[in-house]
Amino acid sequence: MRLIGFESNGERHIGRVEDGRVHDLGEIGAFYASGGQVADTGQVFDRAELTEAPCVPVTSRVFCVGVNYLDHAAESKSMVNMDLPEHPVVFGRWAQSLNVHDAVVPLPPNEPGLDFEAELAVIIKDEVWLADQDTALDHVLGYSAFNDLSARTKQRHTPQFTLGKNPDESGPLGPELVTADELPRGAEGLRIMTRVNGEVMQDANTSLLIHSIPKIIEYITDTVTLLPGDVIASGTPGGVGAARPPPVFCGEGDVVEVEIEQIGVLRNTFRAR
Amino acid sequence: MRLIGFESNGERHIGRVEDGRVHDLGEIGAFYASGGQVADTGQVFDRAELTEAPCVPVTSRVFCVGVNYLDHAAESKSMVNMDLPEHPVVFGRWAQSLNVHDAVVPLPPNEPGLDFEAELAVIIKDEVWLADQDTALDHVLGYSAFNDLSARTKQRHTPQFTLGKNPDESGPLGPELVTADELPRGAEGLRIMTRVNGEVMQDANTSLLIHSIPKIIEYITDTVTLLPGDVIASGTPGGVGAARPPPVFCGEGDVVEVEIEQIGVLRNTFRAR
Repeated sequence: MRLIGFESNGERHIGRVEDGRVHDLGEIGAFYASGGQVADTGQVFDRAELTEAPCVPVTSRVFCVGVNYLDHAAESKSMVNMDLPEHPVVFGRWAQSLNVHDAVVPLPPNEPGLDFEAELAVIIKDEVWLADQDTALDHVLGYSAFNDLSARTKQRHTPQFTLGKNPDESGPLGPELVTADELPRGAEGLRIMTRVNGEVMQDANTSLLIHSIPKIIEYITDTVTLLPGDVIASGTPGGVGAARPPPVFCGEGDVVEVEIEQIGVLRNTFRAR
Repeated sequence: MRLIGFESNGERHIGRVEDGRVHDLGEIGAFYASGGQVADTGQVFDRAELTEAPCVPVTSRVFCVGVNYLDHAAESKSMVNMDLPEHPVVFGRWAQSLNVHDAVVPLPPNEPGLDFEAELAVIIKDEVWLADQDTALDHVLGYSAFNDLSARTKQRHTPQFTLGKNPDESGPLGPELVTADELPRGAEGLRIMTRVNGEVMQDANTSLLIHSIPKIIEYITDTVTLLPGDVIASGTPGGVGAARPPPVFCGEGDVVEVEIEQIGVLRNTFRAR
């Protein structure tokens, strides 16, 4: 099943996508509260007619894992002075920073542009406290592609990444949420790439995570109870713009695509604000 | 005006407190969307009968400023290797980590206890983008006391504070939200203290912030649009438990009080989970 969020009479809904048509599954909070078990409302829309919204509620939290691929850890050492992490390095995004496929991302004014970070996103199905690695994947509803677009100037001002990772609408998630049953277990073994204006910038595989999805879920849930609709962004591989000589940042007119095999292409453009 | 949140028929409401009675101002999201301008619903409750809830919506974001008092910056240098920050050091809490006055805070299992951090909290009134310092305080609805209870083991695992600052229900905010008209401009010049089992652990003044409230609002809003109900936790003074020889952490049976002059006493206890 492939799911998207959309606006409906001032509420955020979620719907199942089939052949460009969206079958309404109702208000998104009720959908997640049911563990994704609600029935179609019977309403069907053309996807192109809808105003899309992130596929999770605005109460959802995004747990972002930093430096979780070896090659990005290496390039980050020079960039933000980070050593290889013994534990998952978790920073947070608020759901207000999320965006959708095909949307235009506003550029923060005091930045040279936004840096791309292709990531596999994990969407949590039900409440989970003290998960163990053997059963952690039972709590995953599905997976999506995520572009952790980063304001590097702000990010480097201090040791805390939070502001640099939360510019308004800077986190495209999509093109759809793909339920776990349609993908390899743990979404392992999938090619993950970024292209900027067609040029390949990142090219890796989701099997190369330093800390696995089950490990991350276990690590979070002895401190924070994960809730339905929470998102784990599992980290980006090497090749980010800030680590390149010369640096590459996305600005007005650029087209960035994050592609994950079997999940799809998440495409975004940019506008000054 | 003094405000608290409370549960009402499965919704979060906000109400005005007078002499132990709470005058219902309706659903909390509608209250904040109106800029705090809604009228009483006419319903009145005894405060003691209500199930209190945080005084902000669950969509609110908590922008926490680290090392924002000189004496805490000094003790933190040994603790987390932080130098005096040129820019506000901002990390995030999600609203699910908030709690209320007089509540029992659950203890994360893999910690020696939670560390206290008395802070002045600023609650945002309306949407603000590109604030300047001269007018930033016009966007403040009011102030409250905040205890940024911290899981130091998790916080020190990696350079990112996020998980150590987001244990379930670890952020008491209260005892009430006091509207700005009842306090000195910017809530400056107020004594701020922490007591653990009656013993004074922190004792400072809100005038001693390194980065002022207007500066913090300006710094956030060239990247993130602040929204009604968002919270800024402005940092804690010296004296935190982890920096003491020997360290002091709050565990079962302990009583922690954060007091801010003219705002009140925020009292909490702890339980194992």
